[in-house]
Amino acid sequence: MDKTSFSSNEGKPIRCKAAICRKAGEAFVIEDIHVDPPQAYEVRIKILCTSLCHTDLTFWKLDFGPISRFPRILGHEAVGVVESIGENVVGFKLGDVVLPVFHPYCEECKDCKSSKTNWCDRYADDFISNTRRYGMASRFKDTSGEVIHHFLFVSSFSEYTVVDIAHLVKISPEIPVDKAALLSCSVSTGIGAAWKVANVEEGSTVAVFGLGAVGLAVAEGARLRGAAKIIGIDTNPDKFELGKKFGFTDFINPTLCGEKKISEVVKEMTEGGVDYSFECVGLASLLTEAFISTRTGTGKTVMLGMEKHAAPISLGSFDLLKGRNICGSLFGGLKSKLDIPILVDHYLKKELNLDSFITHELNFKEINKAFALLEEGKSLRCILWMDK
Amino acid sequence: MDKTSFSSNEGKPIRCKAAICRKAGEAFVIEDIHVDPPQAYEVRIKILCTSLCHTDLTFWKLDFGPISRFPRILGHEAVGVVESIGENVVGFKLGDVVLPVFHPYCEECKDCKSSKTNWCDRYADDFISNTRRYGMASRFKDTSGEVIHHFLFVSSFSEYTVVDIAHLVKISPEIPVDKAALLSCSVSTGIGAAWKVANVEEGSTVAVFGLGAVGLAVAEGARLRGAAKIIGIDTNPDKFELGKKFGFTDFINPTLCGEKKISEVVKEMTEGGVDYSFECVGLASLLTEAFISTRTGTGKTVMLGMEKHAAPISLGSFDLLKGRNICGSLFGGLKSKLDIPILVDHYLKKELNLDSFITHELNFKEINKAFALLEEGKSLRCILWMDK
Repeated sequence: MDKTSFSSNEGKPIRCKAAICRKAGEAFVIEDIHVDPPQAYEVRIKILCTSLCHTDLTFWKLDFGPISRFPRILGHEAVGVVESIGENVVGFKLGDVVLPVFHPYCEECKDCKSSKTNWCDRYADDFISNTRRYGMASRFKDTSGEVIHHFLFVSSFSEYTVVDIAHLVKISPEIPVDKAALLSCSVSTGIGAAWKVANVEEGSTVAVFGLGAVGLAVAEGARLRGAAKIIGIDTNPDKFELGKKFGFTDFINPTLCGEKKISEVVKEMTEGGVDYSFECVGLASLLTEAFISTRTGTGKTVMLGMEKHAAPISLGSFDLLKGRNICGSLFGGLKSKLDIPILVDHYLKKELNLDSFITHELNFKEINKAFALLEEGKSLRCILWMDK
Repeated sequence: MDKTSFSSNEGKPIRCKAAICRKAGEAFVIEDIHVDPPQAYEVRIKILCTSLCHTDLTFWKLDFGPISRFPRILGHEAVGVVESIGENVVGFKLGDVVLPVFHPYCEECKDCKSSKTNWCDRYADDFISNTRRYGMASRFKDTSGEVIHHFLFVSSFSEYTVVDIAHLVKISPEIPVDKAALLSCSVSTGIGAAWKVANVEEGSTVAVFGLGAVGLAVAEGARLRGAAKIIGIDTNPDKFELGKKFGFTDFINPTLCGEKKISEVVKEMTEGGVDYSFECVGLASLLTEAFISTRTGTGKTVMLGMEKHAAPISLGSFDLLKGRNICGSLFGGLKSKLDIPILVDHYLKKELNLDSFITHELNFKEINKAFALLEEGKSLRCILWMDK
């Protein structure tokens, strides 16, 4: 802990701008808010840039259940600089460039100490609270004093936010911050799924369902592992040209498959099925197709997309019995503090293609335009700059 | 290939006794049959003893689909001695003690050469043919000349049978043949599932659904790996006393769980779920319970039972997303020729409990009595001796 250089606001609330969503699906409004100082194990960070992820879109529109809560500051893919630190904070000092990560890594529980999983037994089951160690306590208020809710322990659609150290990773300042932001969620999730969850091998065959940022990152991960064939499946053929930059070798547009199921087409292209399939959309029916697209005996399917309707997954019993595997993962099986610096390093060595993910850049104030681009499928990743 | 000592019947049909099932569910009749000499890559063996498995029971009663075929010689868990060998047979000689195994291992295809799976890409998808390389050609006829069908490439309910070398394993003659017979299917399947498919670790927690021979063998495998808690789940509490001999530490009788689901009881007993669960019954609903009985982040479920109604499996999408794994396996992920001798060795070193599986012994002629014992849940394994 380095407290030699206190920020001028240390211990005090900061007044700054944030994009508030006051009701499900309503336009964001840039408002003045007060951000409380960090408590023990927390860090207050100045956001440098943030991007938008489909999960933000989902929760922006979600109008039921305990996880739907307004007014709220969304956003969870970003890069910031440490502005002030609370008590008991080890490993971070003022001025550090940091990535907030929605998935916790407490470093102390059974699972965090195990190499088998990136699940945090201590924290990961709670994704509803505002703050990690303080339940529904929020660090945000609007100018009238009304509490503003957090989102996934990050809330990056704000000039300043408070993040628990279990959700924070220090990164090298050498990496351009807009590229680094992508490692905060989507790209790490996709590459991690290919590397750590599936463990894609050289010469293997891969099918990726859904060519959003996560699906493209899966392909990038598979490409770096030397996969021989990487099949991209999407109903939007505009994504195929971009997909080639991330290693996709073949494409399937399900709307052009006629009476054939996607899995039948995949099997025809791969002599009986791919070694690995990845579902990056969040539809149970597509996961079933992804599952049956893999080969008997060894096929492995990784679920990355959160099922949009919480529908159960249906698998053919004999298809499973014949040696197929299926598993789910959050954040690509990565332990944030250990694995993100490795990905940064791959980028700095010019091995990892992050640049091609960024299709748009806007000022933070144009956030509603950025959401429209994402919703219309026109942007892959749109970087929102706080100060540009 | 050793042809120095020809059997007197080499190259000729053998007339012997077999238990024929002429119609689904009808009593077996001991009849005289002719067993053809082995063709290339085949071996004719004299069965020493055979046991009954639930799969025999299932196919005895099955009266629809391409796999239901009569008249037929069932039976696939046995030990024999090589009586004569066909062309191109390497690795077997007359007098060898051998185990027939329903699951193929050709040793030559991509999967057989891979350490990732015991699937045989060349053969495993065909489990309907009579003979492995000759399709519907049968080696059995009754005295009127009518063709008798094979079962799972073994057909051990006969004094003599013809088995392809992809389905045959040479074993040490030191192991008593009745104990060895158990390694031909059920016990190998259960231990393999614990060791090779799940890779159960020391100190871990395990739930086994269904305490038949396969489920008990899973527990035996988990016990040998040092699992800390092994929970047995069965509606027949008579099996619990026997279960203790195989390492079960706790039991659940679902009929006594009241309104609680089995998975809820398992979670209460294990602080949130077991590390590994095994479904050994063959019911989709039970597989769902086995799946949700595992802990988030690392839980692994292995499907061993063949779903009795070919019903699809339903999994909660969020339960999967949170890091759970599920996979199916045949023959416990074992490559027969490589792994069965290892299990024999464990028995000879007095590490592996095979003796407790054998609850009954009868003469082959009493096969209908043996089936009744199995069907009524009174026997675990009943050895049928051909000559005693």
